Order: sequence, then C-alpha cells, then structure tokens
Amino acid sequence: MSNETGHVKALVFDVFGTVVDWRTSISREISAVGTRLGVDGDWNAFADRWRAGYHDGMQAFRDGDREWMTADQMYRERLDILLAEYGITGLSEPGTDYLNRAWHRLDPWPDAVEGLTLLKSKFIIGTLSNGNIGLLVNMAKYGGLPWDCVFAGELADSYKPDPKVYLMAANLLNLEPREVMMIAAHNGDLLAARDAGLSTAFVARPAEYGTGGRAPDLEAAAGIDVGAASFVDLARKLGVDG
Amino acid sequence: MSNETGHVKALVFDVFGTVVDWRTSISREISAVGTRLGVDGDWNAFADRWRAGYHDGMQAFRDGDREWMTADQMYRERLDILLAEYGITGLSEPGTDYLNRAWHRLDPWPDAVEGLTLLKSKFIIGTLSNGNIGLLVNMAKYGGLPWDCVFAGELADSYKPDPKVYLMAANLLNLEPREVMMIAAHNGDLLAARDAGLSTAFVARPAEYGTGGRAPDLEAAAGIDVGAASFVDLARKLGVDG
Repeated sequence: MSNETGHVKALVFDVFGTVVDWRTSISREISAVGTRLGVDGDWNAFADRWRAGYHDGMQAFRDGDREWMTADQMYRERLDILLAEYGITGLSEPGTDYLNRAWHRLDPWPDAVEGLTLLKSKFIIGTLSNGNIGLLVNMAKYGGLPWDCVFAGELADSYKPDPKVYLMAANLLNLEPREVMMIAAHNGDLLAARDAGLSTAFVARPAEYGTGGRAPDLEAAAGIDVGAASFVDLARKLGVDG
Repeated sequence: MSNETGHVKALVFDVFGTVVDWRTSISREISAVGTRLGVDGDWNAFADRWRAGYHDGMQAFRDGDREWMTADQMYRERLDILLAEYGITGLSEPGTDYLNRAWHRLDPWPDAVEGLTLLKSKFIIGTLSNGNIGLLVNMAKYGGLPWDCVFAGELADSYKPDPKVYLMAANLLNLEPREVMMIAAHNGDLLAARDAGLSTAFVARPAEYGTGGRAPDLEAAAGIDVGAASFVDLARKLGVDG
C-alpha cells in the first residue's frame, strides 16, 4: 500500500456502473419482455433512457422541484412512460413491478465478487449508492456481493454528491472521513467525496455505457488518490495479498 | 414452515444476548486487564454493571433526560466510573478506548454462525440492535456474522422498543411489517415488535446472565409466532433445509 492510503479502514462503493453492469442486464431483461410480447425495439436505447429517469429524478430533487424518492420509485415512473412509448401494453401490475425490479438483478462486473472478497479480508466494505437500501440488499443477494454494510443516500434523505451523504458513512462507522475511501468509476462522485474529506479510488469501467452511449471516464481525475483497472487491481494497490 | 410464517422475507436480530454472549466475553476481557495490572475483582459483576450502564443510558433517553447517544458512548461513560471504583488506574487513553471496544469483540453463541448461514440461504438477515452501526459492523467482522444488512436504532435516532425502530427496518427493506420477523431472546423486545406489526421468533439463551444474575426469559411469551432453542432450530422451524 502506498503511504497515502495507509490510514484507510473502510471502503464504500458506488454501485450502478462501478460494481454492476446495469446496461447489459437491463437491456437483456427488457429485450426478453419485448420478445415475449412480440414487440420490437432498440433495447439498449430503452435501458439508457430508463437509466436517465433516475438521473432526472435526482436532479429534480436537487433543484428543489421534488421530494426525495427511492430509486425504485424513480425507475417506475420512467418505466411507465417508456412502456407506453414502446407500445408495451401487455404487462400486468405484478409483471410491471417485477420488470421494475430488474434494477435489483444486475450482474456484477466479472472481477467484482473476487475483488470485493479480497478487499473484505483487510477492510470494511460497504455500498454508498443513491439506490435505496432494499434494492441494494436484494442486488447483493442476487449477485453474491459480500458487503459488510449497506449504506445509501436514503439514510441521509439525500443523494450523492451532497457532502452529507459521504460524511454520514464515516459517521456511522465512527471513522474520520479520511479513513473511509470512496470507490467509483465516476470522477464526479469521487471529487465530491474528496471535497467532503474522504479518500478516493477510481476503477475504470469503460464498457458501462456500451458503444455510442455516454462517454465513460477512462482514468482518475487529478486529485484522486488511487486509480485501478479492476477491483482485483485495487486490492493489490491497497496492499491486500491475493 | 408453518402457515403462520410463510409471508416472512427478512429476519432482523437483536444482537447483545441473542446473537453474542456478551457476559462471558466482557468478563474475560476485563479479567485480563485486572490480571495484567494486578487488580482483583469480581469480573462477572463488573460485566453486569457495565452492561447496566447501557440500559440506564437508554432509559434516560426514553425519559427525556438525555440526548441520543451511541452504545460506545454509554459504555465508555460507565466504564470510566467502574475503573475508578475498582481502582484500575493504570490504563492509557488508547488502552481505555481499546477496552471499551470489547463490546465490538463479543463471541457469537456456538450455534449462531451456522444458524445464520442456514437462514441466509432463504431470507434476508440483518441486525436490529440498539448498538451503534460501527460497533455492529466491527462485531460482525470479529465473529464472522454473515449479515446482509446492519440496522440499528441509530438509523432512527432512537432505541427499541420505540415502534419507529421496528418500522424503519421494514421501510428500508420495502417490506410490509409482517414480512419482517424480529428474532430475540427477550420477550419485551418481541412483544414491542409484534405491537408494531412485525412477525416474531423467540430463541432461548438461558446462559445470557450467567448464574445468579438477572433471570433470563426461558420461553416465548404468549403471542410470539415461533419459539426455538437455537438459530439452527429456528432455521428448521422456518423451513430451511439443513
């Protein structure tokens, strides 16, 4: 481990895009629904627009235009719009709810479980997501993610990058902010965590948005403590014997 | 599984006394400190009185006489009193802090890890303790407790048996109260959980208070859904194939 990270005791992870590959998983689920109901569509575009509903919902909260909502609620609102637009009318209410919970069934990136298991041997590992707690707990059981604790913006009635979300994680663990390292594939998240006093590590997820989607961050921004190519690489860089 | 518990999706556990044997662990740690510093004492009595500081602190909050405090803070306050009373004056501040964190290093009852692992195969399993989150996370790593999530009164700025603590767990998991089962060795905790709408299971821990201490609850009170002799027995009674 480098001298700069020797004080780190807990790692908290962004989840969507950093731990799990939401786009492939969501496209697969909605594509299966389309096939079953005889509807054609660009399912990657559906996934991207569904995901955008979550970002739009959080932004509306930040702008003061909406109350705090769970990810489940934001996804459901956008799903109803997209289903109508794509002409998918054959789903029952339980079927629609099940589809909405596709966000609870996202596949981990191939290195995620191995890397988290290595990191867990030396550090407290937890989520720090804008997804709601119930979603994150179900996702962990689905994907075998070995969290020690599940933290989310929900516990602070806010969303990242609000500094109080990052500081809440340190406070709940009775640690100094610098003893907690935020891990994400998104520099915006990391720079906000750094500004709140946390340690930071970037893990590259160049395939998050597929081809032709939004451009991923390919490397750590200036001021991020550690850059890694995977969670296994991160474990090595944080001094875990693999 | 009986018909009465088929709707249960998550199990939340009282921790001190139900999952871990606090009295044996604490007596051992304080006894070792006494031996090292050449002080004699009744270390079981020390443990009981230290534990009572936690109950007294929570009661003072319920009575409106104090602000909400973490278990760490309540234990530390009583520890300072007991160390003076027992004439233990040789501890440094780091040494005292380390001793106070003995509550993070409590041994699980012999059936706990096996039983939790069985139960985890079918249910979400989490804590619902009046201990603080940091303490519970450290204890889980110390004892190998395989929680899916760590919930505590801290997340509601209150303590059990305040109904809002029980309802918070259901709310965070997006479940109906009856879909969450509270597990405890203490009927008072279970009856309060039942009154809040949760399902309930009693697990007997007849050795919690040792011999001559407070009398343990030996069986489930009327109105508790399930009674079990251990976590492994509970798994069997909830339909988990062992």
